[in-house]
Amino acid sequence: MSGGIRITGVDITPVAFHDPALLNAVGVHEPYALRAIVEVHTDQGITGLGETYADDGHLRRLRAAVEVITGMDVHTLGGMHRRISEALGGDTGSDGHGLTGMITSSSTADRVFAPFEVACLDIQGKAAGLPVSDLLGGAVRDRVPFSAYLFYKWAGHPGAEPDGWGEALDPDGIVAQARRMTAEYGFGAIKLKGGVMPPEEEVEAVRALHKAFPGVPLRLDPNAAWTVETSVRVAGELDGVLEYLEDPTPGQQAMAEVARRAPMPLATNMCVVAFDELSSAVARDSVQVVLSDHHYWGGLQRSLLLAGICRTFDLGLSMHSNSHLGISLAAMTHLAAATPNLTYACDTHWPWKSEEVVVPGALEFADGAVRVPTTPGLGVELDRDALARLHEQYVRCGLRERDDTGYMQRIDPSYERKSPRW
Amino acid sequence: MSGGIRITGVDITPVAFHDPALLNAVGVHEPYALRAIVEVHTDQGITGLGETYADDGHLRRLRAAVEVITGMDVHTLGGMHRRISEALGGDTGSDGHGLTGMITSSSTADRVFAPFEVACLDIQGKAAGLPVSDLLGGAVRDRVPFSAYLFYKWAGHPGAEPDGWGEALDPDGIVAQARRMTAEYGFGAIKLKGGVMPPEEEVEAVRALHKAFPGVPLRLDPNAAWTVETSVRVAGELDGVLEYLEDPTPGQQAMAEVARRAPMPLATNMCVVAFDELSSAVARDSVQVVLSDHHYWGGLQRSLLLAGICRTFDLGLSMHSNSHLGISLAAMTHLAAATPNLTYACDTHWPWKSEEVVVPGALEFADGAVRVPTTPGLGVELDRDALARLHEQYVRCGLRERDDTGYMQRIDPSYERKSPRW
Repeated sequence: MSGGIRITGVDITPVAFHDPALLNAVGVHEPYALRAIVEVHTDQGITGLGETYADDGHLRRLRAAVEVITGMDVHTLGGMHRRISEALGGDTGSDGHGLTGMITSSSTADRVFAPFEVACLDIQGKAAGLPVSDLLGGAVRDRVPFSAYLFYKWAGHPGAEPDGWGEALDPDGIVAQARRMTAEYGFGAIKLKGGVMPPEEEVEAVRALHKAFPGVPLRLDPNAAWTVETSVRVAGELDGVLEYLEDPTPGQQAMAEVARRAPMPLATNMCVVAFDELSSAVARDSVQVVLSDHHYWGGLQRSLLLAGICRTFDLGLSMHSNSHLGISLAAMTHLAAATPNLTYACDTHWPWKSEEVVVPGALEFADGAVRVPTTPGLGVELDRDALARLHEQYVRCGLRERDDTGYMQRIDPSYERKSPRW
Repeated sequence: MSGGIRITGVDITPVAFHDPALLNAVGVHEPYALRAIVEVHTDQGITGLGETYADDGHLRRLRAAVEVITGMDVHTLGGMHRRISEALGGDTGSDGHGLTGMITSSSTADRVFAPFEVACLDIQGKAAGLPVSDLLGGAVRDRVPFSAYLFYKWAGHPGAEPDGWGEALDPDGIVAQARRMTAEYGFGAIKLKGGVMPPEEEVEAVRALHKAFPGVPLRLDPNAAWTVETSVRVAGELDGVLEYLEDPTPGQQAMAEVARRAPMPLATNMCVVAFDELSSAVARDSVQVVLSDHHYWGGLQRSLLLAGICRTFDLGLSMHSNSHLGISLAAMTHLAAATPNLTYACDTHWPWKSEEVVVPGALEFADGAVRVPTTPGLGVELDRDALARLHEQYVRCGLRERDDTGYMQRIDPSYERKSPRW
């Protein structure tokens, strides 16, 4: 009578892919970004894919989760979340890089659950002959717009060849980067990762972008590098230029103070990163735009819940990105397609990577957007040779945590991590 | 490549079934309750079922919705909701009986959309071989507890034979009703519809229930029949007796005042009945328990959103009922099974009806709970003879709106509708 599809086992494969020397408020990207590729196998011979973080602690928690979900039906996602929460027993992850806010035991469960949920939806879709967007209420758009994601960067990693993008350390470099990226991908919105240069220099860079791309929505994200006063001053200087200002200052209380005095909406992926932070954010009106991210909001269904909460409480909704591969891009695209109130272009680090684990062709950018896959499940397939290659790279590279600050300090021993810095 | 299942047509059949003379704050139930049975047909030969209100205005809006959803894929529920909203063009339903709060154009769209969404999920489940609960994240319980629903009532409708339940107009009558209903169904929670007798008499009835059923959770729902002062006094008198007090007084502001002074949580299906009423309810803390009801919260997926909002904002969650038939009971059961934080027993008018449109056997009460169907879709099937019979009864009975007050006034011309009354 039942369409039961049971999990028989899960493969978790950490991979590493080359990442340029992108600068941010806590240091610089290391030469490799880490991800874990999750393959959920079932008694029906259908396999589902997920993608998530790959720091050691997270890998350990993912493996603990596998123990308790093996044997479960891929449709019992509520029960799966509960079992994973219980199995973690209040274990709490850490965010060594400090770019995504506080991690609690409940948000740790959401992070661990997410890739399994995505993989189970991939399986459900394949079994039913439906794209994942159809399992999320159906696509309300057939292409999902993404945003260019600009970074201050070095020409290359110290001691290595320059990468293809070249140096960007001033307004001219940023505008040149934007020109190339928008020409290549067609992006219709632009985000600059800030918190790297003194605020006045970043203001100049954003003004240069505004001049070079009139009418294009711009965002600036200094990752909480500024005090309230600096934030308010910069916000005033960029009035009419930014569609939103992302995480200018640390913590909901300071953000609320900036929000009261800033002319544009404030966005966050730092002070509201879990469900238990939403009620205080609403009560304080500390942010006007929440950046969803299914990797830490507990998967695609819970990200839809976040979207519904934003709609209900009159909060804007955008989408956050870390360095990611094609499985995540597929999941982000299905989710965004099925989220009516996701009206901002989504963030993606996509242009910064040159390697991949999925078979090419399923996900292509055109006019700054990705066409929503209409094939069953996520619509992407693993390239096993590429997976083996990137896993081998993981094994050899030796990186086991993301540590932008430590890497920066090895290059510049005087570097100090500080929030706010200015 | 796609599992597309397109809607080819929809049958909407209004039905009437016998309803006892149940008293409430605005009058008395008429001899028949009205419902509309919705059958959504598809190009795959699969039909899905929904059930909803059947007043004339609602039937007209349902038919307008059919025009715009015919041809759509049953998986594109987000797009379907949008099309229905647009087709209604701001048309707003009325709630003649006044028992479910304010109706707006957006909540009207939710009401109209709901039975089609349920029918589409029924189809999705049948096509995939999955129970509807699996489409909602999976059942987290295999049986759903319901509550006994007591009413003050006359022995029968004026001029008709007494019904089988007899008169209940005082504490003894209410306790006798409760004894019979709990013996028959095994309910482990009891709700009394109040707002009928002067508050002191209802306090006595609840105390009598407490004495007769020690330890059983009790609820009292006077449908906003009381002033703030009366509400606070009754709340004090029933301290330690009620698990929650439902809608003692009209409006969020008055409810907030009662909430500040009452020892038990306040519940509502009157002052928070749509998504656009949630943010002010949270801001004022006017209610502590929201009664969901997929018939007006826009279907099963949106009811899950309501549940997620309640979990996120620390609101309790229970479930409201109107007089309903088996399609609704099936939908309520799947929804409740898949809602982790639905920890109160759900309301149902089930014991008060003697007729049905679904084939018997799929939904049985045991120990006050309904076992969650595990067959594909909702797990219920139309009894076409019964449907024809109840439709014929609708045609003949002449009722076209629910009008508890008008019926009461035909019996007692001095009756006035008043909120608050005491």
